Formats: sequence, C-alpha cells, structure tokens
Amino acid sequence: MSPRSTGARGPYAKTAERRAAIIAAAREVFASHGYRSGSVQEVADRCGVSQSAVLHHFPAKEDLLLAVLADRDERGDDVAEGLALEAGVTAQASRNTGTPGIIELYTTLCAESTSPEHPAHAYFAERFARARSSFGEQFRELREEGRLRPGVDPDLAGAGLVALWDGAQLQWLMDPDAVNVAQALRHYLGLVLLPDRGPAGGGHDTSAGTGA
Amino acid sequence: MSPRSTGARGPYAKTAERRAAIIAAAREVFASHGYRSGSVQEVADRCGVSQSAVLHHFPAKEDLLLAVLADRDERGDDVAEGLALEAGVTAQASRNTGTPGIIELYTTLCAESTSPEHPAHAYFAERFARARSSFGEQFRELREEGRLRPGVDPDLAGAGLVALWDGAQLQWLMDPDAVNVAQALRHYLGLVLLPDRGPAGGGHDTSAGTGA
Repeated sequence: MSPRSTGARGPYAKTAERRAAIIAAAREVFASHGYRSGSVQEVADRCGVSQSAVLHHFPAKEDLLLAVLADRDERGDDVAEGLALEAGVTAQASRNTGTPGIIELYTTLCAESTSPEHPAHAYFAERFARARSSFGEQFRELREEGRLRPGVDPDLAGAGLVALWDGAQLQWLMDPDAVNVAQALRHYLGLVLLPDRGPAGGGHDTSAGTGA
Repeated sequence: MSPRSTGARGPYAKTAERRAAIIAAAREVFASHGYRSGSVQEVADRCGVSQSAVLHHFPAKEDLLLAVLADRDERGDDVAEGLALEAGVTAQASRNTGTPGIIELYTTLCAESTSPEHPAHAYFAERFARARSSFGEQFRELREEGRLRPGVDPDLAGAGLVALWDGAQLQWLMDPDAVNVAQALRHYLGLVLLPDRGPAGGGHDTSAGTGA
C-alpha cells in the first residue's frame, strides 16, 4: 500500500476519475477501431495522458477491455431490476437502442472473442452461461405460475431468448429501420408464454413494455 | 480480353485454380487474424505467390473479403434445396456445425460490418434483408396451409428465425457443448408452427433461404 493511498479522499477520487476517463477513452477507441486494431497509445492520446499512465492502471490492453465490459455491466444492472420478465427485457432492449455505439462494441467484441485464446473469451462465455441460466430459471418459475406454454422447455426458451436478442440487435445495428428489437423480443415472449390473465381478464399480454 | 484467355482451357483452368487458392488463403487469414488485421501480404505468403499476383485478381483487400463470402454462399446454396422449411433449416444448421472456422469468420465479419463504412456492410445488410423476406414468405405460405400458429406474424417470425439462428451460432461458437443450434431452431419452429398433420417428411418445396 503506498503512503498516498492512506491519505484523504483526494487521491482516491483522483485515481477513480483517472480510471473512469481511461475506460471511457478505451471504449471509444475499441468502438471505432475494434479491439485488435485499437492501441493503448491511442487510448492514452485520447484522454491526454502518457501510455505509462494508462499501463499503471491497466497493465495490459486486455485489462482495458475487461474494464470497459465490467463498466457496462455495472451501469446496466439496474434497468430491469424488480420488473417482471417481459417488462424487464423490453426496458433493457429500449435502453440499448439509446446507446448504439456500446451495442456495436459489445457485438463486435463478443464475435471476436469466440476463440478461446481471446482475452475476453472467459468473460463472454460466462456471461452467456449466466444469462441462459437466469432466463431458464425465470421461465421455470413462470411455468409454476401456469404462464409457460405447454410443451415449452424452459432452458431452451431461455437460451433462445438470449440468442434471439443478440441476433435481433445485430440486424438492428445493420439496418436500424428494418428491425425493432423490443418488438422482436415481445413477439418471441408471446410465443413462449401464455397471456397474463391479469385483473382485466383480457386474453392478451398485458406486460408494461416500454419499447420504442 | 487478353490473347491467353482465348486459348484452350489450360489458362482458364489455371486462373480459376489460382483464384480459388487465393480465396482459400484469404479465408484462413481473415479467420485467424480478423479482417482488419489480416493483410494482403499474409494472403500472398500463405498461397506462395507475390502480393502483386493477389492484387492482379483482387485489386483491394475488400475484394478478397467479398470473394470469400460469395464463395461460401455458392457452396451453401444446395443444402436446403427442395426440403420443407424445418428440414431445410436443420440440415443447413447441421452442415454449419461441421465448419466452425467458416461460421466464426462469418460471425466476426458480420459483427464488424455493422458500420456503414465497412466494405462488407452492403453484402450483410442485403443478405439479412433477403433472409428475412424469404422466411417471411415461407411462413406466409405455411399460414395458407394452416400450419402457422394463430396470432403469429409471418414477418416477425421470419426475422426472429434469422435472429435466433445467428444468436444460437454465436453461443455455440463460444461453448460448443452448451448449445445445439439445430435443436434451438427446431424448438423455435415448434413455437411458431403447428404440428404437421401430413405424412412424415412430406414436403412442399420451400427451400430454406439464406440462413447463416
């Protein structure tokens, strides 16, 4: 522990600020040049510090990449919190539509990282496993409530939801006017789930989607 | 037309052979280094010709890329020909499982090309539009035959099939033991379609479009 790190909150705050600035610069560099082509020097230039200052906080380029991804996860965690599945999924999808640059970065990095040697491979492999398991669990709970369409496998439905979401985002990035991601997700959930027979007793899905 | 090209099939065959060797080398270079990082020089080195020989056939790196993609489309066209939708889709998915390197290249290039400036952007944007339209049309025909689940929108179902396919392939590339693409597609089609009450395997011709 360095003497300075035991001081008042000044140095802490400054370090946190510097880290945040580097992460933001790395996100921009990777988004515009790709992870492979983007360099630590470019990240340093973009936030006006030396390359060794960047390397002090992030010893390797892959640490920068993982910091960009973790930062996104932290920001995103709250969006769907406490919402029912349909509402949570469409709220998150609509939020993603507002940050196409981040979705583009995520999509490209994810595709690049399918090779086990890629530094973000473990991150994405675990992220997929977690997402499949989480949605599978939610569909299992919905089955308990009589909401899962008979014959639907909750785990396949969960993996399918993750797959359809990524694929729809890819089509949307390619041609934003051709695909509405929230609508695609609602359509899929309409196939997997039976209508929520809420207070009105109406036959149709009453989820409070906020999708565009 | 050069004098040599009017000769016997020798020179033609040699040119075609050379082109095919360059395309194969380009596919390997882009698959291992990515399109952005892979160089024409590496492609030349890999097939034992000079860089100018490569540039004679493909004046720019992007021409190489588009040739790799077109080559894949040509090889893939026959797989689903003459099969009913479900059989065609799963046959194509199973075939893709046998060529993970090609699927990895396709997936990475597709993700990289979402930016309109990317040389393969128009290729992928048109490919998606064609796939959505082809599957939408097939679902419309299946609706005529009473096979579409009531309430399902054929166009959303078509776009959803393309999306789920790409997303499932991404998960499979990331972790081949965790996801079975053909199974994921069958599950999805089981949600969209009503059971076929005709003779097993009996099929009208609805070739399965261009699923990746």
